[in-house]
Amino acid sequence: MSPLQPVCAYSPVMMGFFLRTSSLRTALRHRSPHRAFSSAGPTGGSTGDLGSSFRTATSRKLHSGANVPEPSPAAAPTRLPFSTVTGDDLAFFEKILPGRAITDPDLLESSNVDWLKSVRGSSEVLLRPQTTEEVSQILKYCNGRNLAVNPQGGNTGLVGGSVPVYDEVILSTALMNKILTFDSISGILTCQAGCVLENLSSHLEERDYIMPLDLGAKGSCHIGGNVATNAGGLRLLRYGSLRGTVLGLEVVLADGRVLDCLTTLRKDNTGYDLKQLFIGSEGTLGVITAVSILCPRKPKSVNVVFLGCETFDQLLRTFQLCRGMLGEILSAFEFLDSECMRLLNTHLKLPNPISDCPFYIVIETSGSNATHDEEKLHNFLEEAMASSLVTDGTVATEDSKIKALWSMRERVTEALTHDGFTYKYDISLPVEQIYQLVTDMREHLGGRAKSVVGYGHVGDGNLHLNITSPAKDPGLLAAVEPFVYQWTARCRGSVSAEHGLGLKKRNYIYYSKPRQAVALMGDIKAMLDPKGILNPYKTLPDDLK
Amino acid sequence: MSPLQPVCAYSPVMMGFFLRTSSLRTALRHRSPHRAFSSAGPTGGSTGDLGSSFRTATSRKLHSGANVPEPSPAAAPTRLPFSTVTGDDLAFFEKILPGRAITDPDLLESSNVDWLKSVRGSSEVLLRPQTTEEVSQILKYCNGRNLAVNPQGGNTGLVGGSVPVYDEVILSTALMNKILTFDSISGILTCQAGCVLENLSSHLEERDYIMPLDLGAKGSCHIGGNVATNAGGLRLLRYGSLRGTVLGLEVVLADGRVLDCLTTLRKDNTGYDLKQLFIGSEGTLGVITAVSILCPRKPKSVNVVFLGCETFDQLLRTFQLCRGMLGEILSAFEFLDSECMRLLNTHLKLPNPISDCPFYIVIETSGSNATHDEEKLHNFLEEAMASSLVTDGTVATEDSKIKALWSMRERVTEALTHDGFTYKYDISLPVEQIYQLVTDMREHLGGRAKSVVGYGHVGDGNLHLNITSPAKDPGLLAAVEPFVYQWTARCRGSVSAEHGLGLKKRNYIYYSKPRQAVALMGDIKAMLDPKGILNPYKTLPDDLK
Repeated sequence: MSPLQPVCAYSPVMMGFFLRTSSLRTALRHRSPHRAFSSAGPTGGSTGDLGSSFRTATSRKLHSGANVPEPSPAAAPTRLPFSTVTGDDLAFFEKILPGRAITDPDLLESSNVDWLKSVRGSSEVLLRPQTTEEVSQILKYCNGRNLAVNPQGGNTGLVGGSVPVYDEVILSTALMNKILTFDSISGILTCQAGCVLENLSSHLEERDYIMPLDLGAKGSCHIGGNVATNAGGLRLLRYGSLRGTVLGLEVVLADGRVLDCLTTLRKDNTGYDLKQLFIGSEGTLGVITAVSILCPRKPKSVNVVFLGCETFDQLLRTFQLCRGMLGEILSAFEFLDSECMRLLNTHLKLPNPISDCPFYIVIETSGSNATHDEEKLHNFLEEAMASSLVTDGTVATEDSKIKALWSMRERVTEALTHDGFTYKYDISLPVEQIYQLVTDMREHLGGRAKSVVGYGHVGDGNLHLNITSPAKDPGLLAAVEPFVYQWTARCRGSVSAEHGLGLKKRNYIYYSKPRQAVALMGDIKAMLDPKGILNPYKTLPDDLK
Repeated sequence: MSPLQPVCAYSPVMMGFFLRTSSLRTALRHRSPHRAFSSAGPTGGSTGDLGSSFRTATSRKLHSGANVPEPSPAAAPTRLPFSTVTGDDLAFFEKILPGRAITDPDLLESSNVDWLKSVRGSSEVLLRPQTTEEVSQILKYCNGRNLAVNPQGGNTGLVGGSVPVYDEVILSTALMNKILTFDSISGILTCQAGCVLENLSSHLEERDYIMPLDLGAKGSCHIGGNVATNAGGLRLLRYGSLRGTVLGLEVVLADGRVLDCLTTLRKDNTGYDLKQLFIGSEGTLGVITAVSILCPRKPKSVNVVFLGCETFDQLLRTFQLCRGMLGEILSAFEFLDSECMRLLNTHLKLPNPISDCPFYIVIETSGSNATHDEEKLHNFLEEAMASSLVTDGTVATEDSKIKALWSMRERVTEALTHDGFTYKYDISLPVEQIYQLVTDMREHLGGRAKSVVGYGHVGDGNLHLNITSPAKDPGLLAAVEPFVYQWTARCRGSVSAEHGLGLKKRNYIYYSKPRQAVALMGDIKAMLDPKGILNPYKTLPDDLK
C-alpha cells in the first residue's frame, strides 16, 4: 500500500498502513511523545500476519499448565449485524450535542486511527459529550437503535482497543475534562473521565501531591481511559495498581443507566465492589464518566542508580537486597540486557555509563528526606558491591543525570526501531523466570533473528521481549509464535501484562485465562451489555461473540 | 432466657443469648482474643431491637444525597424454601469426607454461633473438606439437592455473616490449611483458604516478610475469610486494601465448577479481573479455596507516638503534616476523644500518658532504618509542637512502651463494655467529617445517652461511634437510628467501613449504595448462584431475594 493509496472502508488494516491525508498527519504530530511506545510496544506489529497458520477458535483446547491451547487468528473479525448510522441518527446526535457531533471526515480521521498507526476504523460520526447526562442519552439512543459505540479517551492504547473497527459511533470523553474536587487532607481527587493525566498531575503537584500512576502517554491519555485499561506504568511498584487506588467510578451502562459508585471512601464494605468490573474492561462493559482516586504525597527526594551484574541470578539477588535495604523508598527496579546496551551504543550512540556487563539495572528511590534516602542508597550500594552482586555502578541525584540514566532504559525501543523490523511481546511472569524466556527464545531461534533482547520492570515481573530482523519475516514469526505464548502459558504468565487485549490480542486470552473464566467474562458482558454495542470486537475472544 | 434454657432450632437469636453447653464454652474459650472486638464492634448489638420501628423494604426510596432512604428491619429473615438435610445427604457427605462430616450437636455448636455470641443458626451438619476437589463435590451435590450452604472460615466475623441463619450446611475451610508456595524474591505467598492469618504471619516473618493485613482476630481468622470479607485491619493505611494485594484466587462456584484465577502475577490485563467479584462478597458468590497475595518486607524499625490536640481541626492538620514529613514510614494514624480517655481512666484505671486534651492521636511508623525513622519522627514532632498543632505528646521505641501506648487506643471498647449497654457504629466518611458525626450525635441526643464517644482510623476515614446507656434503651436507639445512617448517607459515607453487611446489616445497604447498584449486585448473584444456595440471608437486602 503506497502512502497515497486510500485505505478500504469497513476493513480494519492491522499494520504497515500509511496516512492518506495531511490533516491526519497534522493531528498526530500535535500529540505528545508516547513513552509507552518507546518502552513497550504491542504485539500488534506482528498479529496481522498470523491468520493462515492458526486453527480456528473452536478447535482450541482448554487452558492448563501442560495442555497449552492452540492459537487462534488475530485477523480482522467479521462485522456484527449492528445498524448503520442514518441521517435521522445524525440529526438526533446534533440535537443533543449541538456542534459536538462531528462528521467532517478530516476531523474524524485522527479518531479512526490508533496512536501506533497500526489499526483504523471507518466511523462516520464522533460525539463529544460534556456531561454524564449526555453520555447517558447517547447510549440509551444507540442501544435502542442497535448502533455500536466505541468509547474513546486519549486514543493512546497499544492494542487497538481505542479506535473503531468498522463504523462504530465514536464517543469521545475529550470534553469531559473538569476536575470536580480535591481533598488536600485525604489526597482524594475526583474528576471527569476526560481529564488528561498530565493536567491532573500538574493540578496535584501544585498541592504537593502526585497521581499514583505515570505513563509515557500522560500528555494525551485520559484518566477514564487509564482506568478502563487498568494502566500500569512507572509507579506501580511503589503505589500499586488502579484496583487499589481508584476509590470510586461513575459509569454509564450500555442502555444509558447511570451507575453512581463515585464515592471517595478508602473503606466501604457495603456489598459487591461494582467499580472493579469496569477497571480494565476496556470500555466493553460501560463508559466511565468520572473517577475518584487516592493520590500519594509528592516525594521530596528522588535518586537514580545504574548498576551492572554478571548474571540474572545476581540481578534477582540484588533486587531482594534492595527491597530489604531501600524498603519504603524504592520506587522502580528496571533492567536491560547487554544486547539492549549494544543497540543503544550502535544506533543511538549512547555510551555505557559504566563498564560492560551482561545485565544492567536502573533503581529509583523516592522519599521524604534527601539525606536519609542518600544514606540508604549508599548503604545498599556498599553491601551490593561487598557481596559481589553488582560489578559496577553510578548514582545520580541531580535532574539532568537522572534523566540521562533513565534514558538508557527508556530509549531501548527507539534503538530497536533502528535495528530492523521488531516483533514485540509484553509478558508478565513470576519474577524468577522473566529472563529465562529470553534465553530460551535465543536458543530456540538459533541464528534466525538479528537481535533478541530483553528488558522491563523486574519489580512487577514484566518482561519486554523484542526480536528484530532486517525486514518482516513470516518464517521468523512462525518460529516465535506460538512458542512465546506457549512458554508464557506454561509458567502461568500473562500475555498482556499492562496493555490489555483490545482488538489485537483478544484471541490470545486463552493462553492466560482458563476457558471457565473466559466463559464467565462472556456472561458478565451479556448481563451488562446484552446487545453487545459497547466496544465490539475488543477484549473478549471471537468465539464468545 | 436462662443459661440452661435450650435455644430454639430454626430461629436465629440475634442477641442476649447465653450458652447452653459447656462444650461451647470450652470451644469459645480456646479462641484467641479478638482485637477487632475491642476496637470496633458491629451494630449487631442493637439490630435485634429495630424491627417494629421500621417500614418494610418495599417502601424505601431510591438512594441519593438529599433523598435518604427509610430504613428497613434487620430482624430475622424468613427461611427460604431450601431442602432440609436427610439421612441420604449425610451418607453422601460421610462417603466423600470420611470422618469429616460432623453431626454431633456438641461439636456443631461452636460453628452455629458467632464469635460475639450475638447470632446463632441450627445447622445439623458441619463439613470439613481438605481439598478444592472435595469442596467442588460438596457444592455440586448441594446445588443439585437445593441445600443451602454456609461457608465458614475462622468464624470471627462481626456482622453475623459467618454462621448459618437456619439449617444451612456449614462448609468449613479449617482443614484447608496448607501453605502452597512462597517466593522470597517477589514476596508472593500462595496458600489454601483455611490458613490462619497468624500462622501465615509467622511463616513469613521467619522469611523477613509480613502479611499485608493484620487483625485482632489473627489467631483464629482464615485468610479465605479475610478475603471474602475484604478485611481492613491495622495496616491498610500503609499497604492498601486486599483489592490491591490479593493477586489470585481459586474459587468454587455454587454449582461446583472450579474457577482457577490463582495466578501470582503483579500485572495481568487479560480480560476482566474476576477475582474482584469474590473479594468482599462474604461467601455469597463462591467459596474461596486458595489465595495468592503480595507481601511486604518486614519493617526493621517501629515507633509509636501519642499526642494531644485542642481541636479536631488541629488533629486533621497534624495528619496532613504527618503525611508530608513521615511520608513513606507512616503506618498508622489513629485517634480517640477525651470521652474515650475518661472511660479508660474510670473503668480500666489506665492513666493518661500525657496532659488532658480534647483529642488524642496514636501515630505508628514502620521503616527500614531506625536512625532515619527516629529522626523523621523527631523533626515532625518539633514542627507539630512549634506550629501549636499538638499540645503534648510522648514517644515509644521499645516494645513494652509501644504496647502501652497502643492499648490506649485498643482498649477503648473494653472500657465501653464497663460503661453500660453500647450501641456501636462502624462508619466510613470523608476524613474532614468523621468527628462532626460525633458532635452532631451528642447535640441530637442531648442528655439522653450516658456517653457518646468517637475513635477510629483517621488515615482511613473510619469512625467508630459508640453510644452507651445504663441498660438497653429502645427510646435511645430510636433517637440514634435512623439518624446515624441518614447522616452517613448525606455525606456519601459507608454504613460498613470494614466489617461487611452479613446478616445484621444487609438491609442497611441502601444508605450507602444506590438502588441501581444494589439491583446490579442482585444480577451478579443470580448469574453466579441462580438457586441462591450460597450463604443465603447475607450481604444482599431482603427485597432482592
